[in-house]
Amino acid sequence: MRSAARIFVVIAAVALAAPAAMAETPKFARNATSFTLDNGIEVVVIPDHRAPIVTHMVWYKAGAADEQSGVSGVAHFLEHLMFKGTKDHPEGEFSKVINSVGGNENAFTTDDTTAYHQTVAKQYLPQMMEFEADRMANLQLSEPEVLTERDVILEERRMRIDSSPGARLGEAVRAALYANSRYGIPTIGWQNEMEQLDLDDAVAWYDRFYTPNNAFVIVAGDVTEDEVRKLAEATYGKVKRRFDPPPRFRAAEPEPQAARTVTLADPQVTQPSLQRLYLAPSYATAAPGEAEALDILAEILGGGTTSRLYRDLVVDQGIAASAGTFYQSNQLGDTMFGFYGSPRGDVTLDRIEAALDADIARVVSDGVTEAEVAAAKRRLIAATVFAEDNAFSLARALGTAIATGETIEEAQNWPAAIDAVTVDAVNAAAARYLDVRRSVTGYLVGEPAKNPS
Amino acid sequence: MRSAARIFVVIAAVALAAPAAMAETPKFARNATSFTLDNGIEVVVIPDHRAPIVTHMVWYKAGAADEQSGVSGVAHFLEHLMFKGTKDHPEGEFSKVINSVGGNENAFTTDDTTAYHQTVAKQYLPQMMEFEADRMANLQLSEPEVLTERDVILEERRMRIDSSPGARLGEAVRAALYANSRYGIPTIGWQNEMEQLDLDDAVAWYDRFYTPNNAFVIVAGDVTEDEVRKLAEATYGKVKRRFDPPPRFRAAEPEPQAARTVTLADPQVTQPSLQRLYLAPSYATAAPGEAEALDILAEILGGGTTSRLYRDLVVDQGIAASAGTFYQSNQLGDTMFGFYGSPRGDVTLDRIEAALDADIARVVSDGVTEAEVAAAKRRLIAATVFAEDNAFSLARALGTAIATGETIEEAQNWPAAIDAVTVDAVNAAAARYLDVRRSVTGYLVGEPAKNPS
Repeated sequence: MRSAARIFVVIAAVALAAPAAMAETPKFARNATSFTLDNGIEVVVIPDHRAPIVTHMVWYKAGAADEQSGVSGVAHFLEHLMFKGTKDHPEGEFSKVINSVGGNENAFTTDDTTAYHQTVAKQYLPQMMEFEADRMANLQLSEPEVLTERDVILEERRMRIDSSPGARLGEAVRAALYANSRYGIPTIGWQNEMEQLDLDDAVAWYDRFYTPNNAFVIVAGDVTEDEVRKLAEATYGKVKRRFDPPPRFRAAEPEPQAARTVTLADPQVTQPSLQRLYLAPSYATAAPGEAEALDILAEILGGGTTSRLYRDLVVDQGIAASAGTFYQSNQLGDTMFGFYGSPRGDVTLDRIEAALDADIARVVSDGVTEAEVAAAKRRLIAATVFAEDNAFSLARALGTAIATGETIEEAQNWPAAIDAVTVDAVNAAAARYLDVRRSVTGYLVGEPAKNPS
Repeated sequence: MRSAARIFVVIAAVALAAPAAMAETPKFARNATSFTLDNGIEVVVIPDHRAPIVTHMVWYKAGAADEQSGVSGVAHFLEHLMFKGTKDHPEGEFSKVINSVGGNENAFTTDDTTAYHQTVAKQYLPQMMEFEADRMANLQLSEPEVLTERDVILEERRMRIDSSPGARLGEAVRAALYANSRYGIPTIGWQNEMEQLDLDDAVAWYDRFYTPNNAFVIVAGDVTEDEVRKLAEATYGKVKRRFDPPPRFRAAEPEPQAARTVTLADPQVTQPSLQRLYLAPSYATAAPGEAEALDILAEILGGGTTSRLYRDLVVDQGIAASAGTFYQSNQLGDTMFGFYGSPRGDVTLDRIEAALDADIARVVSDGVTEAEVAAAKRRLIAATVFAEDNAFSLARALGTAIATGETIEEAQNWPAAIDAVTVDAVNAAAARYLDVRRSVTGYLVGEPAKNPS
């Protein structure tokens, strides 16, 4: 409820402001400050004194797309193995402490980064930092525990991917979209390669990326920068710079030449669906303003129940059970701008695709309106304010931006950058990127694929 | 004429032999012998005294699929740069000598290997070996000539790929077929990466792969092993082992989950066509006998005018201008088993695809016959004998086998391995690999693709 109230206030404020009133646009994570210790680790502090809790995250600038050929999945594998303990803190101790104080913890791996986080009452922050600093340099792994954990990630793959036709289609669609970069390879890894991962692979990954000068820390919550600096110096500051990480590199995609489709047929599928992905630039690869324009375009076309697609396919025509867009804008390399839709009742996928194509063709030929752009800006900026209300989501959003190449200042000024987008910029982005040659269309169907062989 | 006569004799001989008469199956390149010098270079000799000429080839076990992410095209780029000369033999001297003695030369790069070759009167062989040995270790490159040659390979790409819709489709189809290995990346490179190749990239490639212990030489023609050994010791034998090359590695493909299509629409296209590729094992990755079975399957389905597809689509139904198969069996990693067809007159691609699908479904469900397998064996074995008649094609075929992981003995015994294939093995291979989930279908069309966006 509190969140909703805050959003309302911001929407009202923006709505009353003059157009392009950039000075009045709220900043994202405006309290965030940062400093860098001698060993190269950057520490970001986001004070928020509403409750005596803190979220503590450590981020490594290494994700699945940094893997070398043949060891897909090793980034995520090491994320699991980071819970195996050190000499000073054997396996399980860290988690036991968090549980005993009523905190929670987790970790995640993406294509561009790996992060570990805990949310605890503020007095336990020093202990969290000490544990994370310790496992940054002192992880101990043995062959048996590595092989046991490999069974765990293989089981995770079976559960999350292999048993889900939609997830299998998603993998095949991304493999078809990316012709050059490793974003076409699943974050969790290909099963045939995961089965071969061993202690050497895990240690090689740890010794290539886990060093303070390849990491950053975010502490959000009931702290001050001074407090965090003292704690950071006493914990992370003691970790030696172990080596220089390789330069971050994402192979650029060639200009796509041909429209592609991917059809996954599985008797398990009871609700057919389709997705359409276009290769698009990310904040890291786009020309200035282009990624912001795509964010607004995604919002206009498919952001929620007032979007064009939802109104057209779900409400007006009544042919779709769902329809919308997604734009994975925070990525180090070229990324995807996507559409999805699933039919209602007996409606065919062909009909959904034709309606989707008509809406895409219309935005390419006729463009968007001033009113649509203004409304999309209000919603996007309001969403950043919504994120502010939760220390974890705020830290995660800021961390994602930093891990994919943005500065803290760029991330803070994102609302103003969104506010500066023009109708022309949105129309130019639609015309440039919603080109069928850049696309892959994925079909999830219950019956066998059309080709009978 | 001579070749045709030899083939006839062999076909007759095989036809008269009892089934599975392996002892009577001709060997491929039966005269080939080899030895290895102290620096690790292997030298293969194939004596053939019918004419006083020799073909001399040097092969490096490095091709485009050995490239690292971001420098696609560097293998082929270095092939060009190998003609830039050394201290002792400045640019142009090598070629001038070959021309002056009426010889010919060339070089080629594939995904798995790079080779340089000359065909000259036998008395010039020592000079050829001296030149090749020299540039194996002493290549001299400067920034200006590297940049000039980069324009040459970019122009080559424009001519061969960008100006040809069929070639552009081929690239897109292979990119969609291979989800994990670098076979999905074109041998010539992606233009955006070729544009960035520089002197450092070229030298890094040369210093990673161009060493005698990563090369082999084939001399075919009017020579004896003893002669070649003396010459090799005096030339290649003097080249120092410069470093250890990295182990050869091809990322294995995950089990494919979803049928894919790729549509390239270009107004230049006056003759539409389609291709269907299935991910299949190569001689290097297949279970014993499986690649041989696929070779026979390809021959039965699409090898020439007596094949099932040609007879059905071109002759009987009269709907296709062409139809056939291809199986790229010599590859270090997983490879493709392909079909192609183009319609005659006003016939649609859909109709060609339906006919192709029917023939594929029929072979999967009903299998092949003893008579078809026997005829395919005769034709494949005869083709190896045909290759024997030309020193260059013989050397190239043997070199390709060696460069993709076969021993000389395995290559020599290939006819016997083909002769041993059973109907059951062919049927099992068809059922296992002609599965639509393993496939990518490429459409080359003149009108815009179906999706109107």
